Amino acid sequence: MKTQQTTKLWGTAFHETPSAETLAFTVGRDAVGIPAADMALLPYDLWVNQAHTVMLAKTGIIPVSDAAKILSALSLLEEKVQQKAFELDPSKEDVHTNIESWLTKKIGFAAAGKLHTARSRNDQIVTDMRLLLRDLVLTHIEHCIALSEAFLVLADNTRGVLMPGFTHHQHAMMTTLGHTFAGFASMVIRDTNRFQDWYGLHNSNPLGGAASYGTSYPIDTKMTAHLLGFDGAVHNSLDAIMNRWEPEADFAYAVTILMNHLSSIAETCIVLSMPEFGMVTFADAYSSGSSIMPQKKNPAVLEVIKGKTGYVIGQLVGLLALGKANFIGYNNDSQWTKYMVLDIARESASVPTVLAGALETMTIHEKVMASWCLKTCIGATTLMEQLSAQFAIPMRQAKIIVEMAVKSSASGDVIPAENLIAALNAEGVTVSVTPQQVAAWQEPATAVSLIKSSGGPGKNSMKTSLKKLHKKLTAQRVWLVEKQKAQQSAKKLLVQMATSLMKGGEK
Amino acid sequence: MKTQQTTKLWGTAFHETPSAETLAFTVGRDAVGIPAADMALLPYDLWVNQAHTVMLAKTGIIPVSDAAKILSALSLLEEKVQQKAFELDPSKEDVHTNIESWLTKKIGFAAAGKLHTARSRNDQIVTDMRLLLRDLVLTHIEHCIALSEAFLVLADNTRGVLMPGFTHHQHAMMTTLGHTFAGFASMVIRDTNRFQDWYGLHNSNPLGGAASYGTSYPIDTKMTAHLLGFDGAVHNSLDAIMNRWEPEADFAYAVTILMNHLSSIAETCIVLSMPEFGMVTFADAYSSGSSIMPQKKNPAVLEVIKGKTGYVIGQLVGLLALGKANFIGYNNDSQWTKYMVLDIARESASVPTVLAGALETMTIHEKVMASWCLKTCIGATTLMEQLSAQFAIPMRQAKIIVEMAVKSSASGDVIPAENLIAALNAEGVTVSVTPQQVAAWQEPATAVSLIKSSGGPGKNSMKTSLKKLHKKLTAQRVWLVEKQKAQQSAKKLLVQMATSLMKGGEK
Amino acid sequence: MKTQQTTKLWGTAFHETPSAETLAFTVGRDAVGIPAADMALLPYDLWVNQAHTVMLAKTGIIPVSDAAKILSALSLLEEKVQQKAFELDPSKEDVHTNIESWLTKKIGFAAAGKLHTARSRNDQIVTDMRLLLRDLVLTHIEHCIALSEAFLVLADNTRGVLMPGFTHHQHAMMTTLGHTFAGFASMVIRDTNRFQDWYGLHNSNPLGGAASYGTSYPIDTKMTAHLLGFDGAVHNSLDAIMNRWEPEADFAYAVTILMNHLSSIAETCIVLSMPEFGMVTFADAYSSGSSIMPQKKNPAVLEVIKGKTGYVIGQLVGLLALGKANFIGYNNDSQWTKYMVLDIARESASVPTVLAGALETMTIHEKVMASWCLKTCIGATTLMEQLSAQFAIPMRQAKIIVEMAVKSSASGDVIPAENLIAALNAEGVTVSVTPQQVAAWQEPATAVSLIKSSGGPGKNSMKTSLKKLHKKLTAQRVWLVEKQKAQQSAKKLLVQMATSLMKGGEK
Amino acid sequence: MKTQQTTKLWGTAFHETPSAETLAFTVGRDAVGIPAADMALLPYDLWVNQAHTVMLAKTGIIPVSDAAKILSALSLLEEKVQQKAFELDPSKEDVHTNIESWLTKKIGFAAAGKLHTARSRNDQIVTDMRLLLRDLVLTHIEHCIALSEAFLVLADNTRGVLMPGFTHHQHAMMTTLGHTFAGFASMVIRDTNRFQDWYGLHNSNPLGGAASYGTSYPIDTKMTAHLLGFDGAVHNSLDAIMNRWEPEADFAYAVTILMNHLSSIAETCIVLSMPEFGMVTFADAYSSGSSIMPQKKNPAVLEVIKGKTGYVIGQLVGLLALGKANFIGYNNDSQWTKYMVLDIARESASVPTVLAGALETMTIHEKVMASWCLKTCIGATTLMEQLSAQFAIPMRQAKIIVEMAVKSSASGDVIPAENLIAALNAEGVTVSVTPQQVAAWQEPATAVSLIKSSGGPGKNSMKTSLKKLHKKLTAQRVWLVEKQKAQQSAKKLLVQMATSLMKGGEK
Repeated sequence: MKTQQTTKLWGTAFHETPSAETLAFTVGRDAVGIPAADMALLPYDLWVNQAHTVMLAKTGIIPVSDAAKILSALSLLEEKVQQKAFELDPSKEDVHTNIESWLTKKIGFAAAGKLHTARSRNDQIVTDMRLLLRDLVLTHIEHCIALSEAFLVLADNTRGVLMPGFTHHQHAMMTTLGHTFAGFASMVIRDTNRFQDWYGLHNSNPLGGAASYGTSYPIDTKMTAHLLGFDGAVHNSLDAIMNRWEPEADFAYAVTILMNHLSSIAETCIVLSMPEFGMVTFADAYSSGSSIMPQKKNPAVLEVIKGKTGYVIGQLVGLLALGKANFIGYNNDSQWTKYMVLDIARESASVPTVLAGALETMTIHEKVMASWCLKTCIGATTLMEQLSAQFAIPMRQAKIIVEMAVKSSASGDVIPAENLIAALNAEGVTVSVTPQQVAAWQEPATAVSLIKSSGGPGKNSMKTSLKKLHKKLTAQRVWLVEKQKAQQSAKKLLVQMATSLMKGGEK
Repeated sequence: MKTQQTTKLWGTAFHETPSAETLAFTVGRDAVGIPAADMALLPYDLWVNQAHTVMLAKTGIIPVSDAAKILSALSLLEEKVQQKAFELDPSKEDVHTNIESWLTKKIGFAAAGKLHTARSRNDQIVTDMRLLLRDLVLTHIEHCIALSEAFLVLADNTRGVLMPGFTHHQHAMMTTLGHTFAGFASMVIRDTNRFQDWYGLHNSNPLGGAASYGTSYPIDTKMTAHLLGFDGAVHNSLDAIMNRWEPEADFAYAVTILMNHLSSIAETCIVLSMPEFGMVTFADAYSSGSSIMPQKKNPAVLEVIKGKTGYVIGQLVGLLALGKANFIGYNNDSQWTKYMVLDIARESASVPTVLAGALETMTIHEKVMASWCLKTCIGATTLMEQLSAQFAIPMRQAKIIVEMAVKSSASGDVIPAENLIAALNAEGVTVSVTPQQVAAWQEPATAVSLIKSSGGPGKNSMKTSLKKLHKKLTAQRVWLVEKQKAQQSAKKLLVQMATSLMKGGEK
Repeated sequence: MKTQQTTKLWGTAFHETPSAETLAFTVGRDAVGIPAADMALLPYDLWVNQAHTVMLAKTGIIPVSDAAKILSALSLLEEKVQQKAFELDPSKEDVHTNIESWLTKKIGFAAAGKLHTARSRNDQIVTDMRLLLRDLVLTHIEHCIALSEAFLVLADNTRGVLMPGFTHHQHAMMTTLGHTFAGFASMVIRDTNRFQDWYGLHNSNPLGGAASYGTSYPIDTKMTAHLLGFDGAVHNSLDAIMNRWEPEADFAYAVTILMNHLSSIAETCIVLSMPEFGMVTFADAYSSGSSIMPQKKNPAVLEVIKGKTGYVIGQLVGLLALGKANFIGYNNDSQWTKYMVLDIARESASVPTVLAGALETMTIHEKVMASWCLKTCIGATTLMEQLSAQFAIPMRQAKIIVEMAVKSSASGDVIPAENLIAALNAEGVTVSVTPQQVAAWQEPATAVSLIKSSGGPGKNSMKTSLKKLHKKLTAQRVWLVEKQKAQQSAKKLLVQMATSLMKGGEK
Repeated sequence: MKTQQTTKLWGTAFHETPSAETLAFTVGRDAVGIPAADMALLPYDLWVNQAHTVMLAKTGIIPVSDAAKILSALSLLEEKVQQKAFELDPSKEDVHTNIESWLTKKIGFAAAGKLHTARSRNDQIVTDMRLLLRDLVLTHIEHCIALSEAFLVLADNTRGVLMPGFTHHQHAMMTTLGHTFAGFASMVIRDTNRFQDWYGLHNSNPLGGAASYGTSYPIDTKMTAHLLGFDGAVHNSLDAIMNRWEPEADFAYAVTILMNHLSSIAETCIVLSMPEFGMVTFADAYSSGSSIMPQKKNPAVLEVIKGKTGYVIGQLVGLLALGKANFIGYNNDSQWTKYMVLDIARESASVPTVLAGALETMTIHEKVMASWCLKTCIGATTLMEQLSAQFAIPMRQAKIIVEMAVKSSASGDVIPAENLIAALNAEGVTVSVTPQQVAAWQEPATAVSLIKSSGGPGKNSMKTSLKKLHKKLTAQRVWLVEKQKAQQSAKKLLVQMATSLMKGGEK
């Protein structure tokens, strides 16, 4: 025996090896663990600690010398974290305790013991989570923009590819693959808007709310807002802290709608790739095989998107269930919202990219698609519209006439002129429709070219709507860059102020 | 114009008119309202009132003469209800208040004012709901049994109809339509079991729990249990009343799983009926048309089942959300569980019957199905198994060999013997496989007949498993009749005791 | 017997009769039915029909004379609907068929048969739903604004009312009732934003998408957008129609978050009204009684809000489940989204108003609230902060010292100076804290007045944040009026154009 | 400074250190990662491999000598797994591929390549999951039995502890803490039944279903059923494999209902422990503190149970969403069900034990509880019942009279005899009720002792119901032992047959 498989139980029939990314995507958590939740919070908790310390020093709440010590140590720790040289110690509860504990060892209790002045873990974790969520939101926007772009390119490339359009899973009217892809782009562009709305609702600073009821220290929440890239401070500490589930749910909801869209795109492509359809074929690189069936090539990537969608819906529901009928103030229940956010983030992160790859590399069988545009009387509606329009027959009457012609058309593929004329006669309508007209109105390319309505597959409509979708996308790109820059500015300012304090502290 | 449509905007192309049942099923609540919720409780509240009154009299808590008056009036009211001559008055809160108020007018405050002795609306509504739920459970069981039976008949009739079996939406191995139908039956039979489990958990008497903490009257909960057809009394009044959502959720869950199954059956049939498949065609009687597209015939019935499934999942979640983290004792929140139960009942009631009808009347295109059994190398697995079995080649090696043969088979339909032999040679395996064998193992009827495993589509396996499924179904039927009889006995006993009391009261 | 109750089984102990609104709210659907779903769509379907007809005439698709007939008849029908003199006929499927059928009878098939030109029920229902949803959104915004205003007034009135602040259901720090109410206002103001985001995402015109793939008639979707008050036309017909669940889900989600907030407010007030708390008492007008317990006064209104919240969560989940993994094009499943939208609308409509009423009329027992500010060492945190701030003790050290003092304080109410000093000594910290300071920092009014942080209960913080919240509310009011005016303008324009056409048609 | 905290930011005020178990429970996944999912499947996949190999050899499908090699290697691997010396290699997809790959290295391709004969990963994973789920079910049953037992002991110990019973969060009637605990036991005992029902539905063998459509090898599914402890083989391979979400959902549902119960118990105890209640105090060992508030002692354990409940509801919904409207055959989406099952298992595993510990160690303040039994006219119902019973006043009339007395009772604590007599007079009812009677019927111990109804808190009722609950519990214990033994027997038989084969193979 010459060929042996050791890393997967299939693949010899494949012409191309699935990419590592595809394999990782389809095997999920099977052979890979999940890190401690607070590992994801480390950079944000450090950021919050730094901003808080700078503020405490600037407002004179703690001495500059202590702040300098804390900031130097935090800076060191930040490096360790970036080098993946810091592990959370489970015996020290959480990220907050781990960091304070590490600081205490590093710079002593006297200075480290001042870090937590004028705050509580309640406002701290809420702040950490907003920073994390904001980054997740921006990352999702980035991926959605890329996916929208990919769809628009595909739409542009396939605007002439005829295919049957479906309603109720049955042939409805002819359309183009380009129109379909434009529809996908339109959906994802709206998904980006939803993430942007998150930003509008939640990019404000909850730090300083302490336990839920504020602090008697003269803190400056505007300054920390500034240093953390927030648009301002929240207006009520109780609201911000007792609703530790709401920015989480808003994120989860935006992801859920995105995933619902992507799962529908996946479902559509899966069906189009079934042997009976044969309209598209996925690249081997985006397929998987079977442990037993030699001929198998599965659209596993797309199925996994459907699976992940169910998973994400579940997490959203968990978050909503946690937000119902709570007594005022911080409640420990809300800690579990962190896990659901991280689970959603992990499961949804690479979906747009992988989906874009799968669709960009799939082979489109244009002839097969086109061949179905000459069957199932799919041209009946345009035929009816033209009959009605050209001969001033009321639409409802024209429809009945064409229905009769459909009924009498034996093959059920294209309505013959004679059947239409017979129906006209039967209904007592005398018009001079020609066999040429009847054929032309059902001819795929002609039928689609006749579509005039905006948002439809007609040539001009497509041109206009692609332009508008591109315009929306551009605005989203501009918005994203602006927000990314705002974050960088905040971080830069923080480094400046921290550096200045550290120098002051050295004196 | 001769043909005019006034009741629906489509249909001239249909050879058969959709049944009124189909139309009602597909138009849902569009043009039909929903009655007041407590209308559904009327018969159960009357039953509970009668049983309670009999018990109050038998234990001497109220005088026989008063009980007689109450029972006579309730009997009268029962008739009115049966004749649909009783409407709930919204100004009188609910069914309980409406009945007591009616009684007061009928027989005076002195007697009617004794009806509510030793109970509260809390235990009363919980009892009403269990009776309602029990009837819903038994009705669903009845429908599930009928649907299982329909599937078994279809399975039996189509056990020889070859079709491609799918995994991952791709062709996997050949199977039969009969095997598929048997799978459907197997699912629904299990759904019936789940409803039976409801019965085991909840057919016990909560009446007498009063507000949640019992009563100082010497009531006899065994007697009311007996008169209401319960298997006994609950063991803790607080449990029974504070968990007014749990029998509701258990019912909702059983319906949800059933609906998930039926929606998957619907989805499967919808796909098989797509033009590109053309494996089945639904009867016009189970189809709907379009308001605009003349050629359209939609599997609306099956789509609606999918829509209802989403709806039912939602109601279950509502019930579960209501059951989380409640403080002890009756809470008013739980009233909303009644509405969700009724909504589920209304939406799911006719689904099994309608689905059975749609599948029993659909045309099966056997040739189309069979034609796909000679494509996509669907016979590769059986070929591999036989190759491995007949020539003692390790399965894993045989699979690699067949994968190579698949890869080299240009048409991708059936693996030619020469390609297989080339693959064997390439792997250095020398066996005397004949072209006849290679062809036979991929020949559909032969391939399916080779299946030996229990639960599979092979002839003997099917025979055995259909027998076992029939046996299960028979047991369910016996169980159902037993439970229905138990209810009838309880009602009969109640009538006897009530009649005897009424006679006593007349003296 | 002199007193008899016939309409409810309780109330003699009440000083005031619950309002009809309260009673209706608490009895839900018990004795009141639900109208046919499409009754709610009648005004919107008429609007769409009118706008569509005007456009068909203006673009020359149908003759002005036919348009005039249709518009006159629609105008008549509109009057009938307003007079509640039009009932849907269940034998005519839905609102669309009912109206077209009525028109046909009224003006004949020749003219009426032109109404449905260049559209399908698919785009029509999607358009109807957007109009309905838009109105629901605006109504919810109106109610949320009123509720926010009510909370801000309550907050202003009670900003001096001391109460224990809670975290983990335990006393955390002192706060004021005003701070709590401000928190409630802050939540609801954000809820309004979420409804506004709906408007931004979905106020665009899907009419003209026809089945899903456009029409060959030269329709003008800008014109219908204008006449329907939309901000423009959608960019892709397939997107708009296959996602008939998404504007629905977005609405449902916004309501769910609102309800989660209101249920938490309800839960909080329910707990504060428990006998052991006695901090608030609900007005009899917002309470209900028991059918058996004479002393009972229940916060049924608030419990119902919790129940409705569970219900609404369920409907959202139903909508999300319907939106997962759909094949392209219109699917009948999506019809069920209409029912869920209407159910949510019905259940949530009056909640903000009723909640405002319940909280505005509840009696606040200020003394009881204040008394708990002198117990449970609730002043410990401010004491610690001041100790740390005044004597430059690291916060962490100060906390340990106060923890020791808490541990040794026998009564557990207020930390005595001597216990604090003992703890300081034990930790080797020598500071000149006075008994007066120790007492003052724990004195409720002083403690709260010491709170400096923005968003907290301190006097200045509250002043600032109430101002900011008022500002937000004002902006929302301005927005709402603008949108309402936009709708009115659209309707006015439609009437003008229709009238002009009707005149033209008369010639 | 002498005292420094490094592992947690609180605790000096505590008299006792929270147990490691409590801390781990409350910090969740914060600082601890989650292992690769398939690590949990290793023992089950090995079991399935062993049983399958034995069967392959016994049926002659593979030579005994190869089977012996495989079995020896698997035995070795099993040891490694037990010694935690085997890690999954992420480059090898999943547990199945890892094991086959390891085997191939160990014993060569010729023998190892026969392991996967006559099966697919589809039936293999479904079988693995059933074994895993079965163990999870049995473990939950074990924990539920222990928790029920704990509640019954608590109920027995506190059956004389008077407390106010609540409905609508308000005082309803007096009860005992014992009655409340008995209610908790009753709930959990029913939860155990639900897990038992899982066993009845799903303990059958899906191995042999292969891809979904069986195999042409003459496998013996009865034998593998026997060796895996299943009650038999499934009746349809397609059903078993395409519903890879249903046993998962059934488990998730049973856990959800359990968690809903436990979260309500948690909520109840949290409220009873609030300062305003002071009815119970949790042990320090089951409490947590604050990072900022020195006096804080939080019922974190119980709050976490509520949080986990929301989480579990979410996972259930994810599973249900995955089960809706699937096309026939195995689908890759279903892989995500594994993760949700493992997440539920991890989050719910220790809840019953921790809750039992928290409630067993909490201090019960009997006097406080009792003191509230003399307030809020909580005795009014029993007073009314006795008045009605002793003097033959219709219940409804007696209620109105007592309501009047409640209304006129200034203190609102206990109804004075004179107020009752005044009310009787006002209603024109003349009875000889004595002040002693009026006082006695409201006296807590007397009032509770008067309760006669089964399932209530009265002495005899409690005795009877505790007996019945114990009986149920005993039956559950017997059932559990029987099932555990059945598993052990299956494993024992497997070892015997494997050993015998290995000996045969050595020859």
